[in-house]
Amino acid sequence: MDKQKLYDLQTRMSAYEHAMGLISYDAVTTAPKGTASNRERTLAVLSEESYKLSTGSETVELLEELSSHKDELTDEENRMVYLLSKDLQMLSKIPMEEYVAYQQLLVQADAVWHEAKEKSDFASFLPYLEKIFETNKRFALYCAPDKDPYDFWLNEYEEGLDKKTCDEFFAELKSRLIPIVKKAAALPEPDDGCLIAPVTDAEQEAFSRFLMKTIGLDLDHCGFGTTEHPFTTSLGSHLDERITTHYNGENFTYSMFSVIHEGGHALYDTGSKEEYAFTVLDGGVSMGIHESQSRFYENILGRSRAFSKYIFPYIKQFYPGRFDDLNEEDYFKAINRVKPSLIRTEADEVTYCLHVMVRYELEKRIMAGELEVRDLPAEWNRLYKEYLGVDVPNDRCGVLQDSHWSGGAVGYFPSYALGSAYGAQFMKKMRLDVDVDACLAKGDFKPINDWNREKIWQHGSFYTPKQLLDKVLGENFDPAIYVEYLEKKCKEVYGI
Amino acid sequence: MDKQKLYDLQTRMSAYEHAMGLISYDAVTTAPKGTASNRERTLAVLSEESYKLSTGSETVELLEELSSHKDELTDEENRMVYLLSKDLQMLSKIPMEEYVAYQQLLVQADAVWHEAKEKSDFASFLPYLEKIFETNKRFALYCAPDKDPYDFWLNEYEEGLDKKTCDEFFAELKSRLIPIVKKAAALPEPDDGCLIAPVTDAEQEAFSRFLMKTIGLDLDHCGFGTTEHPFTTSLGSHLDERITTHYNGENFTYSMFSVIHEGGHALYDTGSKEEYAFTVLDGGVSMGIHESQSRFYENILGRSRAFSKYIFPYIKQFYPGRFDDLNEEDYFKAINRVKPSLIRTEADEVTYCLHVMVRYELEKRIMAGELEVRDLPAEWNRLYKEYLGVDVPNDRCGVLQDSHWSGGAVGYFPSYALGSAYGAQFMKKMRLDVDVDACLAKGDFKPINDWNREKIWQHGSFYTPKQLLDKVLGENFDPAIYVEYLEKKCKEVYGI
Repeated sequence: MDKQKLYDLQTRMSAYEHAMGLISYDAVTTAPKGTASNRERTLAVLSEESYKLSTGSETVELLEELSSHKDELTDEENRMVYLLSKDLQMLSKIPMEEYVAYQQLLVQADAVWHEAKEKSDFASFLPYLEKIFETNKRFALYCAPDKDPYDFWLNEYEEGLDKKTCDEFFAELKSRLIPIVKKAAALPEPDDGCLIAPVTDAEQEAFSRFLMKTIGLDLDHCGFGTTEHPFTTSLGSHLDERITTHYNGENFTYSMFSVIHEGGHALYDTGSKEEYAFTVLDGGVSMGIHESQSRFYENILGRSRAFSKYIFPYIKQFYPGRFDDLNEEDYFKAINRVKPSLIRTEADEVTYCLHVMVRYELEKRIMAGELEVRDLPAEWNRLYKEYLGVDVPNDRCGVLQDSHWSGGAVGYFPSYALGSAYGAQFMKKMRLDVDVDACLAKGDFKPINDWNREKIWQHGSFYTPKQLLDKVLGENFDPAIYVEYLEKKCKEVYGI
Repeated sequence: MDKQKLYDLQTRMSAYEHAMGLISYDAVTTAPKGTASNRERTLAVLSEESYKLSTGSETVELLEELSSHKDELTDEENRMVYLLSKDLQMLSKIPMEEYVAYQQLLVQADAVWHEAKEKSDFASFLPYLEKIFETNKRFALYCAPDKDPYDFWLNEYEEGLDKKTCDEFFAELKSRLIPIVKKAAALPEPDDGCLIAPVTDAEQEAFSRFLMKTIGLDLDHCGFGTTEHPFTTSLGSHLDERITTHYNGENFTYSMFSVIHEGGHALYDTGSKEEYAFTVLDGGVSMGIHESQSRFYENILGRSRAFSKYIFPYIKQFYPGRFDDLNEEDYFKAINRVKPSLIRTEADEVTYCLHVMVRYELEKRIMAGELEVRDLPAEWNRLYKEYLGVDVPNDRCGVLQDSHWSGGAVGYFPSYALGSAYGAQFMKKMRLDVDVDACLAKGDFKPINDWNREKIWQHGSFYTPKQLLDKVLGENFDPAIYVEYLEKKCKEVYGI
């Protein structure tokens, strides 16, 4: 048995992921507009090669041999073999031509979605979105013929998750959040006009880099760019991480909190054990745990009173002359204002999960065949009215706002809400060991990051999400802790 | 015989080139500083895969079969088979491990060179450069054991070129250029202080994009970035071209002429016949012809009196308030000032070839074993004194200035001088068909580009450089035409 082959296989896989990841990253950051067809051709070849590598007879034999010698492998190696075999089983059930065609479809869909969003033209995107949902259903049935297709994808993004768990989780959130939102809506809302001022891209870039350093990112291993929709990606391994943001020329807090959010993802990825690089254990284990980190940095830390105290003078420094009359208390209230709105990524902490719930409901019904993709905009708008009480003026601010579906991710959205809830419970545990507020007030993220690194980041994908939660929490996951956290925040902001 | 396989093979090869090209492009434009080792690992895998594809038994058999059915192939297909077979023969003579190791060495060397240049520290770069020269010698001997190694590489960059031809070419240039340079140096030199003024990166970027559009580049297929050393690259095919430039905050003409230079490369590449995309016929045929286009746009067009007339008002417009007192005549004289200097890329047209000659002499002697790599800085400085009369204050402005050697390109430099000379002869022909000055004075590049497209660009790599020259010129290549062009320019600037 040649263990080295296990590592060689993963290095080769990482290389293809690196190449395809960079081509996709380039597409949304740097590439000229007319190059999609060129890229599509290259990605078709690379995804075919990568598919062959992952499913080829050499790989099948290697994994079988390793599986029959479990006792000679380390725990880490057994987990690698498990994860690789799981992917292999999935891929080998999807016909290669369909897999490659789907990758090509996603490249086209991304370009079409960008244009459709710009023009608020859902009709032009509809045929692509129909194909994406249809392919997701078909692939799920190839892989797990006896499983509900949406359950299949929920479990892909968050091992162990299914509709039943989501339904319960969202029902609890909904029943407790809606009264809070109503109470807040009845009060005079804090003014966030005080955050509005013209800011240049160059200023926001300088502030973004400052924030990256502040939260403890190593800029030698984490790059920074701008895109329509902010995201984080690892290229090849956690040694080359990239985050992006989007600038709003009128409100610096959009890019500020998106940088801290993506920074949380990047901290998690780059916190993997060095020796996990170029293996399937590298980087975060699931979307839920990933969002627990990104939303932890963005909200639980980034919008806390203690961090507001620290960052406030720097805001005045990075945007000189524009916030002379602003005081720290008004800033804190403004960034925590509760107000039902249209755009998920700009939503406040309290209403955020309602945005997620809309998407969850819609995906679930489409995957169950209870809703047609062409009826999405109308249903989207209806649910926004029902859950958030807002009227959606156009699809640009509605159903076309997110890049997830155009990117092929169906079943991803619930992890945002789940992750937010994990994060609140992590914080409760962290406070037993770390004086978080004292650290934040000094802008000292080291003790916070050290705790996260030790408990969460270093493990990469070694533990399942459930194992990791058990290990970190030492108790059951309890969404009530998240609701309590939100209630406390409302008290701080509104006194209710 | 399955012709389709010929096209499939080339599509696959283009995909690997796209991926590796983008990883290299990203490395110098966007990637965080500490990611070289990550990239190296991926490039090692991809170059190994690409090597296997190019030299695998399937490819060998395909090319053999096609070669034995020449009459069933089009002329284009026969040229593809010839070029692919030539590469195959070369690659199959280089042991794969050595080929892959060399690719890895180049990734490291690039990072080390950047740092060495910054610190003017030749010693840290020396071991890499020694290995690069040594590998170039070894690879040349693998491929052509009976050929002089430097002749081998000259021929690689410019089919048909050898030391003998270069020696004659440079001897003629030297004998005729040095008197001109001396005459010019004896006269009061035109003042280029009038071009010096603080300019921002943002202004230079806006002007660069304006220039790209002016010379006729399609910005939907040609991207733009900034790097330490400007260059041009095609990613996958001519449908995704990228050029870069470097900003000098004191002198806008550096980026101005580098954009026009790289723009010339990009026009040539993107002018290939559409159906050549994803084949080996795509893009320029040789470095000499490539430089004939880049230096044609940069100098013969870009520094002409007619184009100066057109562009002058735009300079005032893009850099408001800084050139109010400048007049067109002084601008024209300043951008054509003849003055021996240290940096090749900033050299004037007349002294430029002397910079190239220094590099040619040094490469030639190292490859012949007559000079040690460690003695390069001293010899570099000695030759700069001898040919150009200037003292080199440090290696940053000396032997470390160019990226070619760190990128593995030995035998490339002569093509710059050769290309300049080709360009002058092309212009003589073009003037028979096109009123070039009238076009330039209006900023109308269409007739010029149409001529180049028809005569040169569209053919991609279909003709050899020699065939192409014969076709375009209808007469022998004659470097005297280039010298006459330079003499005429000196008359315009100095009246001598």
